[in-house]
Amino acid sequence: MLARVPTIDLNADLGESFGRWTIPGERDVLALVSSASIACGAHAGDPGVMRATVRAARARGVVVGAHPGYPDLQGFGRRELGLDADEIAAQVAAQTGALTGIARLEGATVRYVKPHGALYNRAARDAAAARAIASAIRGVDASLAMLALAGSAMLEAAAEAGLRAVREAFVDRAYRGDGTLLPRSEPGAVLDDPARVAERALRLVEDGRVEAADGSVLRLRADSLCVHGDSPDAARLVAAVRERLERAGIGIAPFAAPDPW
Amino acid sequence: MLARVPTIDLNADLGESFGRWTIPGERDVLALVSSASIACGAHAGDPGVMRATVRAARARGVVVGAHPGYPDLQGFGRRELGLDADEIAAQVAAQTGALTGIARLEGATVRYVKPHGALYNRAARDAAAARAIASAIRGVDASLAMLALAGSAMLEAAAEAGLRAVREAFVDRAYRGDGTLLPRSEPGAVLDDPARVAERALRLVEDGRVEAADGSVLRLRADSLCVHGDSPDAARLVAAVRERLERAGIGIAPFAAPDPW
Amino acid sequence: MLARVPTIDLNADLGESFGRWTIPGERDVLALVSSASIACGAHAGDPGVMRATVRAARARGVVVGAHPGYPDLQGFGRRELGLDADEIAAQVAAQTGALTGIARLEGATVRYVKPHGALYNRAARDAAAARAIASAIRGVDASLAMLALAGSAMLEAAAEAGLRAVREAFVDRAYRGDGTLLPRSEPGAVLDDPARVAERALRLVEDGRVEAADGSVLRLRADSLCVHGDSPDAARLVAAVRERLERAGIGIAPFAAPDPW
Amino acid sequence: MLARVPTIDLNADLGESFGRWTIPGERDVLALVSSASIACGAHAGDPGVMRATVRAARARGVVVGAHPGYPDLQGFGRRELGLDADEIAAQVAAQTGALTGIARLEGATVRYVKPHGALYNRAARDAAAARAIASAIRGVDASLAMLALAGSAMLEAAAEAGLRAVREAFVDRAYRGDGTLLPRSEPGAVLDDPARVAERALRLVEDGRVEAADGSVLRLRADSLCVHGDSPDAARLVAAVRERLERAGIGIAPFAAPDPW
Repeated sequence: MLARVPTIDLNADLGESFGRWTIPGERDVLALVSSASIACGAHAGDPGVMRATVRAARARGVVVGAHPGYPDLQGFGRRELGLDADEIAAQVAAQTGALTGIARLEGATVRYVKPHGALYNRAARDAAAARAIASAIRGVDASLAMLALAGSAMLEAAAEAGLRAVREAFVDRAYRGDGTLLPRSEPGAVLDDPARVAERALRLVEDGRVEAADGSVLRLRADSLCVHGDSPDAARLVAAVRERLERAGIGIAPFAAPDPW
Repeated sequence: MLARVPTIDLNADLGESFGRWTIPGERDVLALVSSASIACGAHAGDPGVMRATVRAARARGVVVGAHPGYPDLQGFGRRELGLDADEIAAQVAAQTGALTGIARLEGATVRYVKPHGALYNRAARDAAAARAIASAIRGVDASLAMLALAGSAMLEAAAEAGLRAVREAFVDRAYRGDGTLLPRSEPGAVLDDPARVAERALRLVEDGRVEAADGSVLRLRADSLCVHGDSPDAARLVAAVRERLERAGIGIAPFAAPDPW
Repeated sequence: MLARVPTIDLNADLGESFGRWTIPGERDVLALVSSASIACGAHAGDPGVMRATVRAARARGVVVGAHPGYPDLQGFGRRELGLDADEIAAQVAAQTGALTGIARLEGATVRYVKPHGALYNRAARDAAAARAIASAIRGVDASLAMLALAGSAMLEAAAEAGLRAVREAFVDRAYRGDGTLLPRSEPGAVLDDPARVAERALRLVEDGRVEAADGSVLRLRADSLCVHGDSPDAARLVAAVRERLERAGIGIAPFAAPDPW
Repeated sequence: MLARVPTIDLNADLGESFGRWTIPGERDVLALVSSASIACGAHAGDPGVMRATVRAARARGVVVGAHPGYPDLQGFGRRELGLDADEIAAQVAAQTGALTGIARLEGATVRYVKPHGALYNRAARDAAAARAIASAIRGVDASLAMLALAGSAMLEAAAEAGLRAVREAFVDRAYRGDGTLLPRSEPGAVLDDPARVAERALRLVEDGRVEAADGSVLRLRADSLCVHGDSPDAARLVAAVRERLERAGIGIAPFAAPDPW
């Protein structure tokens, strides 16, 4: 690689099937991202789904991350359960450990941890929750990175714990003016127009800016862009983002080394 | 330690509370055993229970093992779910990993894996299931021992996988003449007279023999004796066993090094 | 209705989504059947899914039935859990009651009960299980019909309990020579060619015969034909069956009165 | 019954075991109360536990009520899940229906509904949640009473729905000055001194007053007094309350007719 091109990581939440229920299109998304945040069995995923997803990620050179969430299958981890800091830490450690066990079966390595859903949203604004997550990650494996909402309390918690923080921005979700995500219950919270999402992605990478739902412009430095793997058109969105970035000379590359194959 | 005394490991299934529901007396049992087989959240246990149990074990110098079971809270892992070999391997890897994640938070080390309930009983007679378990353990961490029913298919599976096999006998369960356990649904399957259980334990350690339910005498070489931690009088049983063995000059000691404290 | 045409009921298993996970195509299937066997929250379904499915069924004049299964979300009720007769009866009563509660919210009436998956297969060959189901149904509401595998032990159990038995045949599943279903784990167990399935349906209705997987011809009298609602192409299969039957002058009509609208 | 004595209902939450896990002492509590609020399988209870509890209640002439909670076994229904009104209504209908199905197996009748834990606390202050509960109860069976926190929004919701409201006060929980319960996470929230609890009960019945945690005195008219069945000393508390009331000439009697035996 003689000429260096600017690169960005693309990550998606994956492995969110459970038992007989599947999230259609996950395979297509996996083929387009550089990092896979894999559900760990508490909000979604089961050991068989985890293993199949790790295997597919490894085969494609996609970096594997743990995606722990609140233990709530019926709510898909999107309900705020109000766990205290000790409960959060135990959940993150057990779920990250579970994916690590599965990854070892497949000769793969878990490189990072990204909290899911309501736990993620809470950690973005609740420093105690963010610290509980960061300390659990460090306890399990201090070499794990923490994928964290750019501009949020999670970054400080990761830094305090001595973890590498990877700043994440969302290309398919609307932001509020304060840099937090507009809740899914609000109209317009989820963006699904590929062209618009792709332009947002480009502006984020090139200018470090994104327009919030209130019209204000946020400045965000991101190391990774997230597209949700469970959107009906996730693969089309990711393909549009990838194509737009590559056309602008920006490469898609993980922030950590994938497993050798 | 100048004078060497013969020793045997005493293990119990622990950490089998869940949420608000507790197994009374677990703390008393933990104080008496040398190894704790800790439930991993699938048949019992949740991350908070796992953490509290690991912490208590470590504080007492009790060796920590993973106790994976079928994913069936309502059935407490005692129903045969009929998972295939791939599903079994994924369950064992995820559950062992989950406990490992928790153990790291507590500065403790998981030293062995012992399957639970219906999964254990199946592995004792079903070589494919035993191999799936052994290969999953080796995949997660080849230095883990496998606690296996003395005389069963599990021992060969452990040996094939290159794992250290620790042979286990049950002092509070009746055996059939073929060396398998009498199912819990049969009358007399669970023994609860402390004096009788203690004598059984002594004969097992000293003579390598145990009387089966049909009156025949089995020859069993065991490295570890198991008492179930969820019996109502588990602590009294374990205390009686321990006292009887010590009176006969047999020490209680784990088969692996406990974590330093 | 002056001219009487021969009619047959078409039923499908529906309401088998859970939380965020959906079974695609259920709405299309619902539009084509005359009876909906609705999951009750144990193997699939949750109260919100149950309510939406009952509402949609009622709006289309589709008869509502309860579809209780083993309590095993991860296994989708397709694992044989080995519950004893008392446990089976309690499950059937609680699940049928749950759907009845939901139906009342919607001004709908539960007309029948059809066991699901492994529970259904067991009841077809295990008279004690069939009797447990039938007695539970009668205990809950003696006016409920029991949808039962044509030619199986379930019919006698229904008759003994004084329940109306509705004989069911499967058009998208292969039969063994003894009249039981070929297990899903066997190759060829699930039929997915619409033309072939439609011809099978016609022969079943007109001749009371179906070819088994071993080439033998079974004689079956059926009051209802089942197509599985969770097959990827369920709607196409049902449409083909319906079209073929109607072309042959056979009407699709429920075996019980739908709720007035 | 020639001489009329004043009476009050005593209710406890019961049937809160699950699978292998039991709440010790429930049988003793059942022998002392006049109404049993029985868990319906979502926060606690399973069909077997529900059936055994209904049977025991019926045999003792104890009135049976449904005790629906949030679907959260790990949190025992004590976490606020934030369900919306439609989800709450569906849960209440399905859970009340489930207990009704079980009660029919046992020849018993469900007479009332009392929400559990976080759902109860929410309904006491959130009129939309209270209305969702009341409308679901009425939809299932308009003859059911609704057990509601005395002085709370639940009473109005019951009245609006045309349901009989039974006003409930807690003798083993501390009140805040505004008449709501002090959360369990606060020190002093749960009272466990039998003598003190018994005096509180007497003052509530005789004077319609209870002292709040802030020292203020609340005026409460209650038709039923609740003691939690899962407290370690629940039976002793209930016995003390019962004895104190009876000594003061106050009878313990249900607010609805028990099933004939």
